[in-house]
Amino acid sequence: MSSIKIRTDLALEARENMEENAEECRGVYVEEEYHEESEIKVTRVVIETKNGSRAMGKPVGVYVTLEAPAMALPDEDYHKEISDELAKQLKQIIPGIDGELSVIVIGLGNREVTADALGPNVVDNLTITRHMVREYGKVAYNQKRVHMISGLVPGVMAKTGMETQEIIKGVVEMTSPDVVVVIDALAARSTKRLNRTIQISNAGINPGSGVGNHRNAITEETLGVPVIAIGVPTVVDAATIVSDAFEKMMHLAGEEPLEIQDDLFTGLDELYNMYVTGKDVDYEIKQISHIICNALNTALET
Amino acid sequence: MSSIKIRTDLALEARENMEENAEECRGVYVEEEYHEESEIKVTRVVIETKNGSRAMGKPVGVYVTLEAPAMALPDEDYHKEISDELAKQLKQIIPGIDGELSVIVIGLGNREVTADALGPNVVDNLTITRHMVREYGKVAYNQKRVHMISGLVPGVMAKTGMETQEIIKGVVEMTSPDVVVVIDALAARSTKRLNRTIQISNAGINPGSGVGNHRNAITEETLGVPVIAIGVPTVVDAATIVSDAFEKMMHLAGEEPLEIQDDLFTGLDELYNMYVTGKDVDYEIKQISHIICNALNTALET
Amino acid sequence: MSSIKIRTDLALEARENMEENAEECRGVYVEEEYHEESEIKVTRVVIETKNGSRAMGKPVGVYVTLEAPAMALPDEDYHKEISDELAKQLKQIIPGIDGELSVIVIGLGNREVTADALGPNVVDNLTITRHMVREYGKVAYNQKRVHMISGLVPGVMAKTGMETQEIIKGVVEMTSPDVVVVIDALAARSTKRLNRTIQISNAGINPGSGVGNHRNAITEETLGVPVIAIGVPTVVDAATIVSDAFEKMMHLAGEEPLEIQDDLFTGLDELYNMYVTGKDVDYEIKQISHIICNALNTALET
Amino acid sequence: MSSIKIRTDLALEARENMEENAEECRGVYVEEEYHEESEIKVTRVVIETKNGSRAMGKPVGVYVTLEAPAMALPDEDYHKEISDELAKQLKQIIPGIDGELSVIVIGLGNREVTADALGPNVVDNLTITRHMVREYGKVAYNQKRVHMISGLVPGVMAKTGMETQEIIKGVVEMTSPDVVVVIDALAARSTKRLNRTIQISNAGINPGSGVGNHRNAITEETLGVPVIAIGVPTVVDAATIVSDAFEKMMHLAGEEPLEIQDDLFTGLDELYNMYVTGKDVDYEIKQISHIICNALNTALET
Repeated sequence: MSSIKIRTDLALEARENMEENAEECRGVYVEEEYHEESEIKVTRVVIETKNGSRAMGKPVGVYVTLEAPAMALPDEDYHKEISDELAKQLKQIIPGIDGELSVIVIGLGNREVTADALGPNVVDNLTITRHMVREYGKVAYNQKRVHMISGLVPGVMAKTGMETQEIIKGVVEMTSPDVVVVIDALAARSTKRLNRTIQISNAGINPGSGVGNHRNAITEETLGVPVIAIGVPTVVDAATIVSDAFEKMMHLAGEEPLEIQDDLFTGLDELYNMYVTGKDVDYEIKQISHIICNALNTALET
Repeated sequence: MSSIKIRTDLALEARENMEENAEECRGVYVEEEYHEESEIKVTRVVIETKNGSRAMGKPVGVYVTLEAPAMALPDEDYHKEISDELAKQLKQIIPGIDGELSVIVIGLGNREVTADALGPNVVDNLTITRHMVREYGKVAYNQKRVHMISGLVPGVMAKTGMETQEIIKGVVEMTSPDVVVVIDALAARSTKRLNRTIQISNAGINPGSGVGNHRNAITEETLGVPVIAIGVPTVVDAATIVSDAFEKMMHLAGEEPLEIQDDLFTGLDELYNMYVTGKDVDYEIKQISHIICNALNTALET
Repeated sequence: MSSIKIRTDLALEARENMEENAEECRGVYVEEEYHEESEIKVTRVVIETKNGSRAMGKPVGVYVTLEAPAMALPDEDYHKEISDELAKQLKQIIPGIDGELSVIVIGLGNREVTADALGPNVVDNLTITRHMVREYGKVAYNQKRVHMISGLVPGVMAKTGMETQEIIKGVVEMTSPDVVVVIDALAARSTKRLNRTIQISNAGINPGSGVGNHRNAITEETLGVPVIAIGVPTVVDAATIVSDAFEKMMHLAGEEPLEIQDDLFTGLDELYNMYVTGKDVDYEIKQISHIICNALNTALET
Repeated sequence: MSSIKIRTDLALEARENMEENAEECRGVYVEEEYHEESEIKVTRVVIETKNGSRAMGKPVGVYVTLEAPAMALPDEDYHKEISDELAKQLKQIIPGIDGELSVIVIGLGNREVTADALGPNVVDNLTITRHMVREYGKVAYNQKRVHMISGLVPGVMAKTGMETQEIIKGVVEMTSPDVVVVIDALAARSTKRLNRTIQISNAGINPGSGVGNHRNAITEETLGVPVIAIGVPTVVDAATIVSDAFEKMMHLAGEEPLEIQDDLFTGLDELYNMYVTGKDVDYEIKQISHIICNALNTALET
């Protein structure tokens, strides 16, 4: 049992940890669906109670994960299948999507760091309609029903000097959207999931989820409107990589290394400021941005 | 006398038009200063009264222009001279700069269009301190007095679906800066001024200045705090180019073409959706962004 | 009759000038095709003789133009139609495409200037196969027949200090492709054609076509292998804009301004170093890059 | 003693390994210099013999390393000190720099991956003179003596389909420079050196140095002219991170884990396709690009 804090932003992985480490937990429901032909696996984790939330280290909410092994590989037809499945799931989770919504889509992350540029990439290429509808009415789109879509790339605190939450809150109060969609690059627990998994959730973004600091939360609670989060694990913490290798080795050696482990990681503090990415990160981020952008355009079409 | 609407964002050019076309106007004062050695010309236009404002087509306020012929050419020492002069002028125009300010610097414009990326470029490279001061206090900078500097690149309406003013207003209300500095690429009246002139003003940004639509104004009036605008003419409207050539030709021909001109421009509507840039626009924008960024860093150091 | 040199890189426009200004010319054949439903117009200009070349100011060769009014507007299905038509035309003009080719695709232009970044954008997103085929054989693609595709973005002379031709010639000699495809942003004669027209030609790239300096030509003659050029007019010279407006005005006034015109343009030298673009240039370039990239991927698939 | 292959591109680190693991080696000379005030440490490793080359796993040549703890931190004056020291070292290692040289500066790496964009960033901002000197002579610079400087960003094999060496060789044969300077992002052995160290060498670039495959070498041997390499460690291989933590832990436990280690790393193959970067990689790469660009401009001024 590892004594270092392993960070994961995926409910799927939080649940895997639970299965290994603890008895079955109440208030957490899981459904799985596997599309034989497209090899897309959809997992729906619903955390219903505070107990469940505590056990999972994640807020109450619905977490849907799409896993597809070839997500980032070059195959445009396959990307369309994933993007259609994602659109379907988005339509189920975005409240009021059958009516007319004002939706703001927010791309979190630093556009100058390849693995973190997912959110900005998606918003840069999204179909934006709010200004047209406000200026010309629905006629601009020859339609009776149109969602008003706006987009924002707030930047990261190191470059803005502001909490991302401050920026978003200000813009939300000024423009009064019905729903906020945030897109973010996540840290995964396992290298196998890098750029192969998309998670959508109505629990919003909770930095340090459950572990304290909610100052930066981007959630219905903090913004006053429903927040749908779309996340893709694009990095693994360096500390996680080391811890994994360490556990694997101990397992092979059949040893119980509990007493030395804390010392070990004490000396490896710097690992918490480093992250690990695959060598094709630029290509893979581009592919997945494209998938998410198309899914949002499809889901928000009327 | 031209019958088409000539657009200029420079008070300097508005005043030149006046001198040519009308009698001396009350309520507008002009001072010029020429630095022999550095070839930098500083012009200070102060519009004091509503009369002056009406005559100039610009709001009441102080407009300082730096002109330097070699502004965009490769000469790092010379850039330092311009940037030092600009810092000096900024210190005079930013209210309360001798104390401790919270300043938000906003880079207007579209970062994907070379001539419009000036503002985003400046903010991308600015020294940002607000988050550090809030987290660690002034100790973070070993200083007794530190300005809290934040930065924002809001994007353009075609990509956000929101008025830039909406975004800025929301962020200003949430983060309560003492001063807003906005940086923008402007349209000039004359190709001679392209990337050779920097204007700073305490009148903020007034689209369609004085001619009506103030919905988008980014000013002390709309934001509730002083707004300092830094602008550089990086494009000329295509209609302006044509009009100039036209007037020049008429002058050479000694003719009076008043009766045909309206028809002419009626047929050239598309010109109002086009702009003219120099062929080295990428290099020149980079140089001037660098100058403004350094000037702001210098002016806001304590 | 205009006395300034009007620059056009489109055979289509060269031919329009001819029709207006001179008698029918021998050695130049023109076919037009209009796809009612898709509103795509395909014009095929074949310059067969030296006479024809002289009259057109363009080298002997085949020039195919696709015009589509909504080319740069947001409509993914329509883009697919244009891109399929372009792929069809490319298959006809690339020699040996039914066998197995080694093709190098070269993106000319400056990636830091929006209107000039078309070529780099296309190559950045192209499917590249040469290194895989060389490393693993055709097995890498589960196919019997595979084209080896490589890509190059040489940069512009102001940034490399080298003629683009020098760079390309060196790389072609070292890697021995069967065919060179060059993609470039062109100057158009008319604002109506901006980002609405794609020209492909087997005559390569001829700067100052027919007017002298062939130092920079990127053609079968200079490279030793067939050169297919794909060009899109993304800018208009500022001088062209002025000249157009001028002619229009003279026409309206019913005058004959021949004697003053030279003086006029003598004073407007700077216009030759400026260019005009539309205000949505970033969006439009992105759309057209996408169309060309898809067309090349389709045409070069096996 | 680690049984996995640890990759380092720094002669400095190769030498540190030697000191720990083997007896003193002949044919390798080391000089160190420490600038008290600026905290810059300059280490000069000269590999003179084949024996030395074998022991170090690096080709015969001169390797100069500048280490400066604050290299990537925001301090413009300090950057000038480092850049001046680097310019001094470059002047010593570039043969013939006191005369008139034709120098091509080549930025290796993938401009779309932040940690790999160092080379492209430097070349994008370098002063390029070759085209001006060829067009207008030295008069263009008002000088008697001018180096002709050209620049190239060849791209990476995954995007060009060509070996980088093929591209460079072709361009070098066509433009006949006297000296080639290549700039590259390296993999370091230790996270402590990330973005804190610059290595220059006259041994060129040797992928898999000494371990076999020289197909891609960019050296005087393969290009026919002297090759000066400038390298900065910007990433650490994920396998190195794990191996380091592993050794540290074994050391703490006082154990001898030789028998299990091979198994461990057999299961961690994927780590060889991943790399580790610091979280401020975008800012740090920008700072160091700036330092190297300034150093080259200074060294190549006349």
